[in-house]
Amino acid sequence: MYAARAWRAARLDSARMPATRLDLEYDGTAFAGWARQPGLRTVQGELERALAVVLRRPVAVTVAGRTDRGVHAWGQVASHAGPPAAARALNGVLPADVAVRASAPAPEGFDARSDARSRTYCYRVLNRDQRSALERDRALWWPHGVDRDALHACAALVRGRHDFTAFTPTRSDHVRFERDVHDARWVERGDVLELWITAEAFMRQMNRILVGTMLQIAGGRRSIESFATLLLEARPRADAGDSAPAHGLYLASVRYADA
Amino acid sequence: MYAARAWRAARLDSARMPATRLDLEYDGTAFAGWARQPGLRTVQGELERALAVVLRRPVAVTVAGRTDRGVHAWGQVASHAGPPAAARALNGVLPADVAVRASAPAPEGFDARSDARSRTYCYRVLNRDQRSALERDRALWWPHGVDRDALHACAALVRGRHDFTAFTPTRSDHVRFERDVHDARWVERGDVLELWITAEAFMRQMNRILVGTMLQIAGGRRSIESFATLLLEARPRADAGDSAPAHGLYLASVRYADA
Repeated sequence: MYAARAWRAARLDSARMPATRLDLEYDGTAFAGWARQPGLRTVQGELERALAVVLRRPVAVTVAGRTDRGVHAWGQVASHAGPPAAARALNGVLPADVAVRASAPAPEGFDARSDARSRTYCYRVLNRDQRSALERDRALWWPHGVDRDALHACAALVRGRHDFTAFTPTRSDHVRFERDVHDARWVERGDVLELWITAEAFMRQMNRILVGTMLQIAGGRRSIESFATLLLEARPRADAGDSAPAHGLYLASVRYADA
Repeated sequence: MYAARAWRAARLDSARMPATRLDLEYDGTAFAGWARQPGLRTVQGELERALAVVLRRPVAVTVAGRTDRGVHAWGQVASHAGPPAAARALNGVLPADVAVRASAPAPEGFDARSDARSRTYCYRVLNRDQRSALERDRALWWPHGVDRDALHACAALVRGRHDFTAFTPTRSDHVRFERDVHDARWVERGDVLELWITAEAFMRQMNRILVGTMLQIAGGRRSIESFATLLLEARPRADAGDSAPAHGLYLASVRYADA
């Protein structure tokens, strides 16, 4: 009883604390993902180190989307308690492959993770015969046939509320497997095909397994009907396709109630 | 007399030889430029090494645009005598930061350098307050004011035939300093400003000095009239602005008579 009261008081304190919103861009190539891990180079680790240098106190951040090893971000959002450090000062301390786009006061108690209304990811597929030098860590090179109509049909099936059990590793911490996909569509820009997908939240590897499975369908190696079955019948992970590699995936943006 | 005849005969032989056109893309970041130099990592060095491995004979290439250290290419064109190697085989041997987009038979005697009718370059300027992680080696970060109208006025002045003495290093191998600029225009894509410029040929560092000078004008540190004077009166190099860094520059494409 006492513990519950203390916890509620702490929550209320945190809700009354000044908070900072950080908008981040990173090249995921040389990072072991977002989440801090002992002995590994992570985005969170580098960011918290830079914040401690600039603010001269230990700072813990929360984040809208915990990206995996090799995944990039154009518009990641993180938050921390207390007033902001200057973006320019942070960028002077951070390594070249992570950049703060903005560091600004947020509403009291702002939490980048729990306040996020939706996340938008983009997966980039370079569909041409020969590999690319400039896109080598920035897009999946896919020198195979791609049936555009099949891709569009898959995206249409993904939109809405579904059980995505087939699209996340079997061993996971997730307790519910339904997700609400607000939008999903393939866009073609030159020889790059991009899947833009927005949902309230995603499960681990969900986007990469969706893309891997869609590319099998667009290559004629799997039917669109089988894809519908995966979504409608909550099939096991083994029934979906391979996970597409991390280096094609970008956390594009995060939406909040007031934005 | 005999020497001249032998030389002409060799030329005619070469004009009758089968030739190959190579379309190349590269990330210039880790290269000491295009041209082969002993002990340095160059694009030409890597390409000729790969051609020798695949074709099992020494191969010398010529190139449409000899790019400097750090300059990238989307559409470089090179040529060599003899039939083509398979693009896929070359890409299997080449390092990840250079890629062959096509390797195909060309008209007899095709020479990527002397047959080129024009080259198109693109210079990319990231105009925003904070630096970028993903564009760090791909665009000049320019967190300063940029008067778009001034940029467009500069581009208009550059179009046409001018003496570009002010826009190439004083010590150079060039014998004439007039160049015919077919087109020059600034295009805005999000927070990136791109100068697209096409000419029959360029002098060394010409594009980078043009961009460096234009950015001074767009920042109010130099007048448009002074820019016109540089072009009309063949002023010395010292009268133009700094050379913009190499990592914003791309050889975009090369045009040939039959294309």
